[in-house]
Amino acid sequence: MTPLKLNPDRLFPAEPGVRAIARTIYHEISRLPLLSPHGHLDARLFRDNEPFSDPAHLLVSSDHYVVRLLHARGLSLDALGTRSRPGAPGDEQDHPLEGREIWRALCTHWEALGGTPSRLWLEHILSDLFELEERPSPETADSSYDHCVAMLQRDELRPRSLYRRFNLEVLTTTDPPAADLAVHDALLGDSSFTGRLLPTFRPDGVVDPNRADFTENLTALEQVTGIDLSDYAGLVRALEQRRDAFRERGATASDHGVEITTTEHLPEADAARLYRAVRAGEANAAQIEAFKGHMVSELARMAVDDGLVMQLHLGVARDYSRSVFERFGQDVGQDFPVNVEYTRTLRPMLSRFGDNPGFRAVLYTIDETLYSREIGPLVSYFPSLYAGAPWWFLDAPDAMARAFAAVGEVAGIANCSGFVDDTRSLCGIGARHDVARRSCAAYLARVVAEHRIGEDEAVALAKGYAYDTPKAVFKL
Amino acid sequence: MTPLKLNPDRLFPAEPGVRAIARTIYHEISRLPLLSPHGHLDARLFRDNEPFSDPAHLLVSSDHYVVRLLHARGLSLDALGTRSRPGAPGDEQDHPLEGREIWRALCTHWEALGGTPSRLWLEHILSDLFELEERPSPETADSSYDHCVAMLQRDELRPRSLYRRFNLEVLTTTDPPAADLAVHDALLGDSSFTGRLLPTFRPDGVVDPNRADFTENLTALEQVTGIDLSDYAGLVRALEQRRDAFRERGATASDHGVEITTTEHLPEADAARLYRAVRAGEANAAQIEAFKGHMVSELARMAVDDGLVMQLHLGVARDYSRSVFERFGQDVGQDFPVNVEYTRTLRPMLSRFGDNPGFRAVLYTIDETLYSREIGPLVSYFPSLYAGAPWWFLDAPDAMARAFAAVGEVAGIANCSGFVDDTRSLCGIGARHDVARRSCAAYLARVVAEHRIGEDEAVALAKGYAYDTPKAVFKL
Amino acid sequence: MTPLKLNPDRLFPAEPGVRAIARTIYHEISRLPLLSPHGHLDARLFRDNEPFSDPAHLLVSSDHYVVRLLHARGLSLDALGTRSRPGAPGDEQDHPLEGREIWRALCTHWEALGGTPSRLWLEHILSDLFELEERPSPETADSSYDHCVAMLQRDELRPRSLYRRFNLEVLTTTDPPAADLAVHDALLGDSSFTGRLLPTFRPDGVVDPNRADFTENLTALEQVTGIDLSDYAGLVRALEQRRDAFRERGATASDHGVEITTTEHLPEADAARLYRAVRAGEANAAQIEAFKGHMVSELARMAVDDGLVMQLHLGVARDYSRSVFERFGQDVGQDFPVNVEYTRTLRPMLSRFGDNPGFRAVLYTIDETLYSREIGPLVSYFPSLYAGAPWWFLDAPDAMARAFAAVGEVAGIANCSGFVDDTRSLCGIGARHDVARRSCAAYLARVVAEHRIGEDEAVALAKGYAYDTPKAVFKL
Repeated sequence: MTPLKLNPDRLFPAEPGVRAIARTIYHEISRLPLLSPHGHLDARLFRDNEPFSDPAHLLVSSDHYVVRLLHARGLSLDALGTRSRPGAPGDEQDHPLEGREIWRALCTHWEALGGTPSRLWLEHILSDLFELEERPSPETADSSYDHCVAMLQRDELRPRSLYRRFNLEVLTTTDPPAADLAVHDALLGDSSFTGRLLPTFRPDGVVDPNRADFTENLTALEQVTGIDLSDYAGLVRALEQRRDAFRERGATASDHGVEITTTEHLPEADAARLYRAVRAGEANAAQIEAFKGHMVSELARMAVDDGLVMQLHLGVARDYSRSVFERFGQDVGQDFPVNVEYTRTLRPMLSRFGDNPGFRAVLYTIDETLYSREIGPLVSYFPSLYAGAPWWFLDAPDAMARAFAAVGEVAGIANCSGFVDDTRSLCGIGARHDVARRSCAAYLARVVAEHRIGEDEAVALAKGYAYDTPKAVFKL
Repeated sequence: MTPLKLNPDRLFPAEPGVRAIARTIYHEISRLPLLSPHGHLDARLFRDNEPFSDPAHLLVSSDHYVVRLLHARGLSLDALGTRSRPGAPGDEQDHPLEGREIWRALCTHWEALGGTPSRLWLEHILSDLFELEERPSPETADSSYDHCVAMLQRDELRPRSLYRRFNLEVLTTTDPPAADLAVHDALLGDSSFTGRLLPTFRPDGVVDPNRADFTENLTALEQVTGIDLSDYAGLVRALEQRRDAFRERGATASDHGVEITTTEHLPEADAARLYRAVRAGEANAAQIEAFKGHMVSELARMAVDDGLVMQLHLGVARDYSRSVFERFGQDVGQDFPVNVEYTRTLRPMLSRFGDNPGFRAVLYTIDETLYSREIGPLVSYFPSLYAGAPWWFLDAPDAMARAFAAVGEVAGIANCSGFVDDTRSLCGIGARHDVARRSCAAYLARVVAEHRIGEDEAVALAKGYAYDTPKAVFKL
Repeated sequence: MTPLKLNPDRLFPAEPGVRAIARTIYHEISRLPLLSPHGHLDARLFRDNEPFSDPAHLLVSSDHYVVRLLHARGLSLDALGTRSRPGAPGDEQDHPLEGREIWRALCTHWEALGGTPSRLWLEHILSDLFELEERPSPETADSSYDHCVAMLQRDELRPRSLYRRFNLEVLTTTDPPAADLAVHDALLGDSSFTGRLLPTFRPDGVVDPNRADFTENLTALEQVTGIDLSDYAGLVRALEQRRDAFRERGATASDHGVEITTTEHLPEADAARLYRAVRAGEANAAQIEAFKGHMVSELARMAVDDGLVMQLHLGVARDYSRSVFERFGQDVGQDFPVNVEYTRTLRPMLSRFGDNPGFRAVLYTIDETLYSREIGPLVSYFPSLYAGAPWWFLDAPDAMARAFAAVGEVAGIANCSGFVDDTRSLCGIGARHDVARRSCAAYLARVVAEHRIGEDEAVALAKGYAYDTPKAVFKL
């Protein structure tokens, strides 16, 4: 049996002098409250506050990062507990044996995950939350599974306990415009829940005609708003109304993942004509492109008016294999980055709003060539812009080191909006923020050791990155 | 005189603690047998097993990496021994004086090569194989040349001796479909040759209508197969027949360097029509693009059927200057990387075969932006895919460190197919694999020192990278 | 009060063994004369040799790097002293109070600049030139401002004194073809000026029809040359005549920032026809693209004839926001990198001239993906090509480390043309070169510590990079 133990110096540079500085910086930020201004948890977790039943479904099947890595090892998505679209069972307790099998797969391939952030997070979770004391392995798969099942019965591992344990100050969900936000309402009215759970306005589904569910989403929006969406003015009004509804529930931000190549703002009449063509299914590819670009620009206009912070998450080829998508739906691990461009694309929008004190946007990328070429330079000039945290495939120590080095030099990390966990894994939130804080400390320690800034300055910048800046940028 | 000596710690990180870990890891892998599943040596070397006569032609003129670097220093391709296409002399012994001149050029510019992998490899070769004890310099050019000429007379430097000395277990050549493989046959039947020399099926010449020799290659294929290639069905049959012939000689892989922007599979009738247009010289650029993309997809279909592992080497502008190409032909150092895209391009092919247990592909790139953006994410999901070794301009310590850090984090190095030397330089095989193994140890040592994985895990991952994984991935 | 002090080991790697090697290398190059073969200073500074009056305008308002970073902190361009186009006051003394306000902004945001190269340069300038002994902060803003104002009265901070203090051997300006070069003439005839101030031929304005001032620039060129520019032959003759005029004033180089996607050379008649269409305002986008590409190729032809070294600076979206441009004009910090391509674009030009001993070109980029993919490979083959220094957003320690590691491996740093400061900030020249030399020493120290080259070789390569190579490459 090999012990599982978190080294207090993990992720710090090996050179003893730099490591000592990293420890000092980390010490100052490790206990600051967590802000999670972008994520994908289900709000019902906190309303219901039920104990989780199965560690395999909790830590493997519901985390598409881990599903992806184990699928690469040869396990089918079914064998990893991914539910098919029709007839997907509603909760984990139907599959106790399946859970044990999935857990065995994880333990068998534990070593092959070495070096990935998912392994770091899982180690943190298993050691810190589940108090597991031995490294996962095929030999100990059953005993560790039983141990984790037993642990899940404890109150400390219920959703609200985890919220407190992680010292979360704000947690956000991501929601379509038509979302009724009833769960958010319930939590707002529940005095026994002391956290802040805010919705985020994600209008992709109603501004991207390429999506299969475009019409369906518009119908849902029509129903929730009571506004006739047959014309463009209705669409604008409905979006504004829902933004207000989100803001009433505490939302401070919107999120945008529509793939665009322009943000050219069209005259109202042109936009209306395009929308009619789109709704009639008569728009060609260029028109759809123009419509999407205009809508992002129009959403920026709304942001100036109502103050929601725009988050841009571009550059993903989603639901890559059509057959897998048809069987399993979205978010099962088969989304991949593609090369992306911000500088030319956002030029019209930033020419209009980039210097407007009422505008704020956070630029994310999973094409890391953008850090020194586009995002760093743009955020180093525009007061409205901030560099988003390394995201998805890049939320890992080496990738974060590259992003810090690139954006930090071009723009200063004062222009970085701080870490977002962007997660569907409640248990992983603490681990993810810890990795980010350690990576920030590691970067700044090197900069101090190379006599570029003082240690006191590094501590201040680290505190900004970990807490003060995201609190201000996301208006929390 | 400055001594030439290989430091046992070369390429290991300078920090003493990390270096000690790197030593430990390297110690466990440095003597594992070499697998060379992708390369460009001439099989006749091993059939004939003649001594090499001239170190300058052996180490400079026949290695386009070194020719390139010395050309940049101002030496003409002629002065470096590059043969013009018409009337190129068949062997080196015609040029003893020319060899000495070339050697002087190498010695004169030795310092300017500092920092390049070619200098590392040459140092390794000169010190280890040629037992040269002084650093090359203009002053010692003649004496070192004479020394190397004398050394080449020794049996230890004949091809088969080098094969054994490098502890090679498998060596592969790269061959067009029409290759008769007679030399491979001869070696299979030669009990005095104890190595394994396998052909690799490289069909670029008969599926890329943009190549000047396209028609010529089809004629050669027609002759070797006896199949009428005037229609598409014939082309498919001929390719299948030759793949079988290659497999009978032990081939386990195919190799593909056709530049493509799609892998859309066409209905048979459409493919047949396109092929007719292509053969008639009537296809436009878009049709040629469609044909190439379809053919790569069709070759993937064959791979599923017969089990050959597909290697994809995209993104090279070959034979850059037409006038140089016309005079000297290909592979003289004037090929350059261009930006390339895999994720969108391979989507149709991976949607069909990515999850098929019978399919396997290895993705190489010399556009390193693909490591974290495309190759890492794709191989971290698809069980059929592996990340190829950093290749050509990237097969060097710093570039490998970047590739390990990028792919290692996204996918784990368990999804890397291991090093390939991809070389035309027999003498350099040992040095190249040694650099790769040291680089792997250096990367993993850092990951251990940062407490991300245990040292025992690092050793296991290093052994996988150096031997076990390529053996399995390439079905050796 | 926190002291402001330059650490002698700044920017050297933290590991003590590597740091010791870096010190040794740096010691050998730190006092070599400075060559500045690419920059943007106003030649009148040296003709007039007036004392500067205001530190805020000198170090903030006139340096668009610093303006950019403080604008990102929320200060308007006006508040930073950026002059509007109409009625811009001619010198700084009109704004003594404004200067103090700007200085306060700098001091207030000093910490937020931490990690950027501008902070490094400012620290160097303030400590070394201005003998400021305390770190800028809001509390000490007024006293440090008064201190700097007083210092500026000293002769040592006049332009010619700074030239000598920096140990400059050559300094270059960048000038349009129609520039009369009267100031250069005056300085050539002024025996009290012992420096060398050379013009650089920058013809962008007369070969890029997309520029708003294209016609205006041609008119100016017509006036200065007396050549009728209504036909293409006139344009060629005028360019040649001005190149000669520049060369008579010591120019050794031209500079090119026209965005191009081809360098296809057209037959004279086609070029003439295109030029007519362009002048008549009748050229479409494709024709403009063809014209620009042809002109760069034609300028390369001139370079072969007259020996001016071609510098290529591609990949900038200039004057990003039209409204800001209209109010403040160019070079106010709102220029941003875009992705760029060299290999395919330059193929026609390099096929013609790449191997011509009379041709020389230096390739710059602010899209750092080009270092290992395009620039490194190209300069590692073509004797005419050199890799330009990391430029603009990349002239900083971490970005330079990445560039050294990428180009250094592919091509050897012997194929790098050395550092250019590219600056509008006279005071910053010493600091910028010092950062570059320290970064070079840091890179080579690592390579030595990893036993890839000897320390003696590293010193020789560093001297080449710092002095010998740029002197030879730029024909100084």
